[in-house]
Amino acid sequence: MSTFNIDHQREGRVGFPEIIYGRSKDIESIKLILQEYKSQGKNAMITKLQSEKAHQLQEIYSSSFYDPIAEIFMLEPITEQEPGKDIAILSAGTSDLFVVNEALHTLSFLGHTPQSFQDIGVSGIHRLMSRLEQLRVFKVLIVIAGFEGALPTVTGGLLPQPIIAVPTSVGYGVAEGGTVALQTMLASCANGITVVNIDNGYGAAVAALRILNTFKK
Amino acid sequence: MSTFNIDHQREGRVGFPEIIYGRSKDIESIKLILQEYKSQGKNAMITKLQSEKAHQLQEIYSSSFYDPIAEIFMLEPITEQEPGKDIAILSAGTSDLFVVNEALHTLSFLGHTPQSFQDIGVSGIHRLMSRLEQLRVFKVLIVIAGFEGALPTVTGGLLPQPIIAVPTSVGYGVAEGGTVALQTMLASCANGITVVNIDNGYGAAVAALRILNTFKK
Amino acid sequence: MSTFNIDHQREGRVGFPEIIYGRSKDIESIKLILQEYKSQGKNAMITKLQSEKAHQLQEIYSSSFYDPIAEIFMLEPITEQEPGKDIAILSAGTSDLFVVNEALHTLSFLGHTPQSFQDIGVSGIHRLMSRLEQLRVFKVLIVIAGFEGALPTVTGGLLPQPIIAVPTSVGYGVAEGGTVALQTMLASCANGITVVNIDNGYGAAVAALRILNTFKK
Amino acid sequence: MSTFNIDHQREGRVGFPEIIYGRSKDIESIKLILQEYKSQGKNAMITKLQSEKAHQLQEIYSSSFYDPIAEIFMLEPITEQEPGKDIAILSAGTSDLFVVNEALHTLSFLGHTPQSFQDIGVSGIHRLMSRLEQLRVFKVLIVIAGFEGALPTVTGGLLPQPIIAVPTSVGYGVAEGGTVALQTMLASCANGITVVNIDNGYGAAVAALRILNTFKK
Amino acid sequence: MSTFNIDHQREGRVGFPEIIYGRSKDIESIKLILQEYKSQGKNAMITKLQSEKAHQLQEIYSSSFYDPIAEIFMLEPITEQEPGKDIAILSAGTSDLFVVNEALHTLSFLGHTPQSFQDIGVSGIHRLMSRLEQLRVFKVLIVIAGFEGALPTVTGGLLPQPIIAVPTSVGYGVAEGGTVALQTMLASCANGITVVNIDNGYGAAVAALRILNTFKK
Amino acid sequence: MSTFNIDHQREGRVGFPEIIYGRSKDIESIKLILQEYKSQGKNAMITKLQSEKAHQLQEIYSSSFYDPIAEIFMLEPITEQEPGKDIAILSAGTSDLFVVNEALHTLSFLGHTPQSFQDIGVSGIHRLMSRLEQLRVFKVLIVIAGFEGALPTVTGGLLPQPIIAVPTSVGYGVAEGGTVALQTMLASCANGITVVNIDNGYGAAVAALRILNTFKK
Amino acid sequence: MSTFNIDHQREGRVGFPEIIYGRSKDIESIKLILQEYKSQGKNAMITKLQSEKAHQLQEIYSSSFYDPIAEIFMLEPITEQEPGKDIAILSAGTSDLFVVNEALHTLSFLGHTPQSFQDIGVSGIHRLMSRLEQLRVFKVLIVIAGFEGALPTVTGGLLPQPIIAVPTSVGYGVAEGGTVALQTMLASCANGITVVNIDNGYGAAVAALRILNTFKK
Amino acid sequence: MSTFNIDHQREGRVGFPEIIYGRSKDIESIKLILQEYKSQGKNAMITKLQSEKAHQLQEIYSSSFYDPIAEIFMLEPITEQEPGKDIAILSAGTSDLFVVNEALHTLSFLGHTPQSFQDIGVSGIHRLMSRLEQLRVFKVLIVIAGFEGALPTVTGGLLPQPIIAVPTSVGYGVAEGGTVALQTMLASCANGITVVNIDNGYGAAVAALRILNTFKK
Repeated sequence: MSTFNIDHQREGRVGFPEIIYGRSKDIESIKLILQEYKSQGKNAMITKLQSEKAHQLQEIYSSSFYDPIAEIFMLEPITEQEPGKDIAILSAGTSDLFVVNEALHTLSFLGHTPQSFQDIGVSGIHRLMSRLEQLRVFKVLIVIAGFEGALPTVTGGLLPQPIIAVPTSVGYGVAEGGTVALQTMLASCANGITVVNIDNGYGAAVAALRILNTFKK
Repeated sequence: MSTFNIDHQREGRVGFPEIIYGRSKDIESIKLILQEYKSQGKNAMITKLQSEKAHQLQEIYSSSFYDPIAEIFMLEPITEQEPGKDIAILSAGTSDLFVVNEALHTLSFLGHTPQSFQDIGVSGIHRLMSRLEQLRVFKVLIVIAGFEGALPTVTGGLLPQPIIAVPTSVGYGVAEGGTVALQTMLASCANGITVVNIDNGYGAAVAALRILNTFKK
Repeated sequence: MSTFNIDHQREGRVGFPEIIYGRSKDIESIKLILQEYKSQGKNAMITKLQSEKAHQLQEIYSSSFYDPIAEIFMLEPITEQEPGKDIAILSAGTSDLFVVNEALHTLSFLGHTPQSFQDIGVSGIHRLMSRLEQLRVFKVLIVIAGFEGALPTVTGGLLPQPIIAVPTSVGYGVAEGGTVALQTMLASCANGITVVNIDNGYGAAVAALRILNTFKK
Repeated sequence: MSTFNIDHQREGRVGFPEIIYGRSKDIESIKLILQEYKSQGKNAMITKLQSEKAHQLQEIYSSSFYDPIAEIFMLEPITEQEPGKDIAILSAGTSDLFVVNEALHTLSFLGHTPQSFQDIGVSGIHRLMSRLEQLRVFKVLIVIAGFEGALPTVTGGLLPQPIIAVPTSVGYGVAEGGTVALQTMLASCANGITVVNIDNGYGAAVAALRILNTFKK
Repeated sequence: MSTFNIDHQREGRVGFPEIIYGRSKDIESIKLILQEYKSQGKNAMITKLQSEKAHQLQEIYSSSFYDPIAEIFMLEPITEQEPGKDIAILSAGTSDLFVVNEALHTLSFLGHTPQSFQDIGVSGIHRLMSRLEQLRVFKVLIVIAGFEGALPTVTGGLLPQPIIAVPTSVGYGVAEGGTVALQTMLASCANGITVVNIDNGYGAAVAALRILNTFKK
Repeated sequence: MSTFNIDHQREGRVGFPEIIYGRSKDIESIKLILQEYKSQGKNAMITKLQSEKAHQLQEIYSSSFYDPIAEIFMLEPITEQEPGKDIAILSAGTSDLFVVNEALHTLSFLGHTPQSFQDIGVSGIHRLMSRLEQLRVFKVLIVIAGFEGALPTVTGGLLPQPIIAVPTSVGYGVAEGGTVALQTMLASCANGITVVNIDNGYGAAVAALRILNTFKK
Repeated sequence: MSTFNIDHQREGRVGFPEIIYGRSKDIESIKLILQEYKSQGKNAMITKLQSEKAHQLQEIYSSSFYDPIAEIFMLEPITEQEPGKDIAILSAGTSDLFVVNEALHTLSFLGHTPQSFQDIGVSGIHRLMSRLEQLRVFKVLIVIAGFEGALPTVTGGLLPQPIIAVPTSVGYGVAEGGTVALQTMLASCANGITVVNIDNGYGAAVAALRILNTFKK
Repeated sequence: MSTFNIDHQREGRVGFPEIIYGRSKDIESIKLILQEYKSQGKNAMITKLQSEKAHQLQEIYSSSFYDPIAEIFMLEPITEQEPGKDIAILSAGTSDLFVVNEALHTLSFLGHTPQSFQDIGVSGIHRLMSRLEQLRVFKVLIVIAGFEGALPTVTGGLLPQPIIAVPTSVGYGVAEGGTVALQTMLASCANGITVVNIDNGYGAAVAALRILNTFKK
C-alpha cells in the first residue's frame, strides 16, 4: 500500500493543485512523489527545497527548473511572460528577494503574470509615493517586508485594493525570524490588510489566486 | 489648535471612512471627536467601546446605537437589510458571537449585507459539511474561531473562495488571549488563507470590502 | 564506581524497559551503556541518535539496526510483523515520517504491531473521511501532525477511541519548532484528546502501551 | 433560523454528549441553549461558568446544581455514589481543588465514580509513596498539579497505568498561569505520560472515559 | 533609621532630580516621601500614580496637581508656558494621549516647553507629510505610537534630528501591552532611532533633557 | 477521610515547618487547615493571602497577625527582636517593600532576626557603596530588586558572601511581572549569585535558613 | 528596469548615506549594488557581511576593507584618526568587541573619531568608577553590554550625557540572543537611557550622529 | 593602551579569581589575555571554549588541560584529589555530564574536592532514595537536571542542606534550550531551593564556594 495520498482532486475542489513542501521531506519520499506526478504527465512544484536535494532531483530530471534563492523546484520550467495588470508584488528591500521569487514562481506555475516593485521600503518613502499611480491599476497587491515590516501599513493607507501582507525572516536581534514583521502587519492601523505566515510567498500567491478565480469567472 | 486630525479624505483614498477605536480613548476626547462628525452631518462608528463610556454617549445622542456584546457604537443606527450573497461569516461557536457581531455591524455600516453561519466548528464536522453547497455561492468568506482555530483550515480545503480568517480570544490555558488560534491560522496547511489580528472582526470586514470594492466597479 | 545507574527494574515497575535518549550523550558514555546491556544479554534501543554516532556504534555492533529518518538505533533488529488491530498511527503529511517511524520502531521494540495511515491531513479531508470505518476497529489512535496540527481535532470529533496526539516540528515561520501544533492539540475543541511533547513518537508509543498493558491483562 | 447547532449526535459518534463552555458565552445565549436541552428532557452541564451567570440561571432552574469552586453548573444534580476502582484522581495540593472538582463532576455527569487522593505533592514524597499499593488497582490515573508540576513525573516512574496529567494555573511568578506545570509534564523523563490543557479537568475526565469506553465494552 | 534614601544629589550628578514611581508604592510610604520633599521646600513629581492614591494626597496637599489621564502628580503645579522650539512630541493617535501627557508634564517639571503634534499616524500619511517643514526646526523629536508603531520609522526616514521613539500599550490582540510597537521601533529600517520602554513618556523626556543639557551649556 | 495531608514531619526532615500558600486556596479549606494547626497547639503562617480572606480569619482568631503589604498571616504574632548579624536584606526601592516584608516575617517566624537595608538601588550607587563595610559582617545577603534588577550583580561584584537574589514584579512595560529582573539575575556576570522565583521573599528566607542551619550546628 | 532603488538622496534628507545590510542579500545582488556605487565614484559600507561573501568581494575590489570580527566591509578603507572628544564607546567585556567595532567603523565611515573604553563591566565596578572624570568630557556615550546588561544603568546613574545603550547577543542560557540585555536596558531605573536593537552598533553610531549633526551646525 | 582590564583584585574582594568566558571571544583576544596571566605566573581557566579554539591554545601551551565535554580549558592542569565531604554534585542523567564536569573542574580549580552522584533522576526514584544517608553528610548540594528538571524539587523535600539547582539544556520539543527545567526549579514547591542560569555549572560551583568561604573561616 502506497503511503502517499496525493490530493489529485484539489484543483477541482479549490481551484489550484496540491504543491509539495520540500524542507522536511526525505529525498526518497520526494523522488517517489515526483514519479507519481511524472507518470500522470503532470508538472509539479516543490517549495522550500534545499539545494542538496534539488541537485539530486536535477540529475534525474535534466529539464527541470530550480531557483536556489527562492528554493523552488519545478518538474518543467514555465515560459516567462510579459507582466500583466492583475497582481503587483511590492517589496521593501533587496534582502526580501527570496520571498518575492517564491510568489513570482508560484503565480507563474498557476498561470499568472505578476509585476514586481522591489526595494521601495518606507525609510525612503519617496520610492513608494512616486509609484502610487502605477500601482493603482492592479487588482491585488502582495506586499512583502522584513525588519519592522511597515510597508503594508503605509501602502494600506494610500491604496484601496486588497493587500496581502507577507512578513519575511529578514532582520536580526528582535527582528530575527520575522516575528516582529508579522505582528506589525497584524496590528496595523491601516485597516483591511490581511496577512500570511512568515516567508510564505507561496501562500500569498494562492490567496491572490483565490480572489482572481472568484471574480474573474 | 485642535489636537484631532480626523482623516476625512480616507474614503476617497482607500474606499472606506475612518472608524474610531474606542478602548483606549478617554471619554472627553471621544465626545469631541463625535461632535466633529455630528457637525459635519456624518454618521460615525466606534469599535471596542466599553459599556460605561457608551452609556455616557447615549445620554448625549439618544438615537444612537450600541451593541454591548460587540462593543460597537454608532451615532445613527443602520436599518437592517436582508442578507445578500456577497459575504458569508462562518463561526465555530456561540462564544465567538462578539467578533461575529463586530464584523456584521461594520459591514452594515459600510453598506453591505453579510449572512452569518454560526456554531459550525470542526468538533462536529457534519455542521460544516452539510452547508457546503449553501456556502459555495458567496464571494468572500470570513471565518471566525477561537480555541484551536481549525475551522478556516478545514473550510480552506473544501471551498475555493478568498478566506479571511479571524482568530478570537475565546479559550483558556494555552488558548487564553487567542494566540493559538492566530498561529494555527497562519500555519494552516490549507493554502491561500489570509489572517487578521485576534478579535479583529472589523478588520476582516474592511478586508472583504477591499475585495468587493475592487472587483464590483 | 560506575556513574551509570541503568534502571533495570523499570520493566517490573511500570511495564516497559528503560530506553536510552541519544541526542545529548557523548559517544563514550553511550558505548559503555551498550556494553552493560550487551553483557546482560539484553536488547537496547536508543532514540534521537545522530547518524555520526550511529555509524560508530554500527562498527562495533555489526548486526545492529539504525533508521536514519527516525534516528532510532537498536542493538538487535526486530523481525517485522503483520500489522494488528490494537494501535493505528495516523499522520497528516509525508514530512511527519520521522515521528511516525519513531512510534513504529518503539512499538515493535516493545512487542506490538501498529498499523500506519499516512498523508491524510485535513486540507484534503476526504482522505480521513473515507477511512473512518477502517479506523473504528483500533483500540488506540496515535495521531501525528505538524504545521497547524488540526488532524487530532477532526479525528477526535469523529471517532470515540483514546487519542494520543503528537505535534511535530514540521513547519516554518510561526510553525517552526512545532509549538503551534502542540498548542492547537492542547486547546482542541474536540474533547478528551491527550498530548505528548513535540516529535515524541516514542512517548506516544509508551502511552499506548500503558493503556494496552492495563486492559489486556 | 436558530444560530445554535447543538451537536445532539455527539454521544452516538464519540461516546459522550456535547458539554457547554460557559466562560465566554453571554447570558442570553446560555439561556437559549439550556431551553433547548430542557425542552428535549436532557440534563446539561456547563463548565467554567462565572458565579454571576450561574446565579441568574439558578433563578430560572431552582433544582439546578452549581459548584462555585469548580464553576460547574448542571441542570439536574447527580446523586453522589460510592467511589469505584476505575479512575483515581491524584492532586498535589489543596489549591488544585477547583480542577479536581471539575474532573469529579464531569465524571459523575458521565456516569462514573472516581476516587480522589488530594494534597500528596512531591515536596513531602512519603504522602505518595505510602499510597502506592492503594493506587495500583485503578485503571486510569488523572494526576493534577500546579507550580512546578512534578507529581505526574514521579507517579509515572512508580506506577504502570495510563496517566493523564493536568497542569493547573496555581502558582505565581514564573508559575503564573500554569505554563511551567504544563511544560514540565510534556517534558517529563517518566515516559508515556499524556497531558491536557491547563486547568482542563473536564478534558482529562473525557480522556479517561475514552479509555474506559473502548475497553469496557 | 529611616528606610528612605532619597537621592538628593542626583540633580548635581546627572542633571535632573529623582522622580517618584507611584504605581507599586503603598500610600503610607508615598506620604512619608512627600513629607521629606515638603520639609526641604522642594517640589516633587510622581509618575503612574493611580487615582485612588492621588485623591488621598490631594486631601493633604490642596494646591497639588494631578492629571488622571497621565496619572501624574506634582506637589506644586507648574505654570503653563508658550511652546518653544527645542522639543517636539509627535503621536500617532488620540489613544496615545496618556503618554504624550506624561512626557509633556515631565518636561514642564524640568523647565522645558515642548510642542505636541497629535494624531498624525501613518495610516493617513499626509498628516505627517504636511508638517515636515514645521517639524524640521526642533532639536529633538519624541515620537509616540501604539499598535504597529510605524510612525518613528517613517519620521526617521524623512527628518535628520535625534528621534526618541516611545511605544505605547495601546492596541489589542498581538498589540496588547505594547510589545509589537516596541519591537517595531527597535527593528526599524530607518536608522539611528533610539527607543525607551513601553509607555515611558517620562524616560523619553529625560533622554531629551540629557541631549539638551549637554549641548545647551 | 480528610483531604488534607499536612506534612507534620517536614521540620524534622528539612529543618523548617510546612507553610501555607494562601492565594489559590478557598476560604473553607484554609479554615479547616488552621483548625488542624490550632488543635495541635502550633503556630501557622500563610503567605500571599488576600486581605478579604485575612479579614475572615481575623474574625475567628482575634489575636492573629496580618500584614496587608506582604499579605502574610500568622495564627500567633511573633515578638519583634533586635536585628542580628546573620542575614541582611538589601532592596533597590521602596516599591519592593512587600517582598522585603515577606522575607522579614518568614525569618521571624523561623526564629531569625534579619536586618534590612532599603532603597539602595544602583541608579544612585553611592547608597550601596557607603554601606559596604556595614554589609560585610553578615553571613548571608538577600538582595531584592524589580525593574532591571541590577542590584544583585553590583553587590556580587563587591562582596564575598552567599547572595540570594529575589526579583520582584515591580515595573511596567517590558518589566511588567518581573521577568526581566529574574533573567538579569540569572544572567549576571557577577558569579556565584543564586536566584529564587519572582516575589518569592519567603523562598529566599528559607534558602538563607538552609545555609544557617547547616553551618550553625 | 533595475530592481535596485538606492536611496541616493538619503544624506541630503537625514544627514547620512544609505548603508547596505549584508546578511540576507545574495552575492549577485550585492555585486550589482556595489557596481552602482563604484560607477558613481562613491564609497560604500556593508554591515553584517559573512566572511565567505566578503572574500568574493575582495577578489573584485582588491583595495577594499573587511573586518571579520565586526563583519564590516568598505569599498575604500578609511584612514585611522586620533580619537576625539565627541563620542565615547564603553563596553562591558572583551566578548562585546564585534559590536564595539561595528560602531567604531560606522563612525569612521561617517567622518567621526570616537574613543573606546573596553572591558569595564559592573562585576568589577572600580573599572568604571576610576574613569568617570575621563568620561565626563564626551558629548555622547554609547554603552555596550551583553549578559545581564547592567553597564548602561550604572553609567546612567553617574554621568549626565545622552546614553545610547546597545545590548549584545553575548551570553548563554536565558541570555542567549541578547533579549535579557535588551530588556534590562529598556527597564533601567537610571532614567533617560535610550536603546537600540541587539548587536546594533551601527544604529547606535547613527543615533550619535543625529545628535552631533543637529547641535554642531 | 591595552583594551583588557583583567580584574586582578577580584579574589581579594569576593574570594575567587576572574574566570574567562570563552564562547564569544575571538581567538586573538584570548591569546593576549592568557599571555597576561602567564606573564604573572598565574593559572587561568576558560569556560565554554569551543574545541577549535582550544586546539589552537594547546599548540601554544603544551601542558595545558582541555575537557571537550565540559569545554573547559586551564593553563595548568589540577592534580586530582580524593573527593571530600563538603560538596555533592547530583545529576539526573548521563546527558547532563557536560554541566557536571563544568562544576567539577571549577571546584578543582578553586581548591575544592566535590563528589558526584550521577544518573539518579526521578523517573527511577529508588536511585535517589537509596543514597539519602550518604548525601546527608555534605554541606552543600549542587543538583543538576534537564528535561522536566524535577530532581531538585524531590531532593529539596528530603534533605535539609543548601541546594543550588542547575537546569541544563538537555531535552527537545518544549524542553529544548533548558527553559522548562529552569522554570520548574524556580517554581518548585520544595522551598528554599536556589537556582542559577541554564548550563551554568561554573556559577553553581562559585555559589557553593561563597557559602563555604563564609562559614569555613
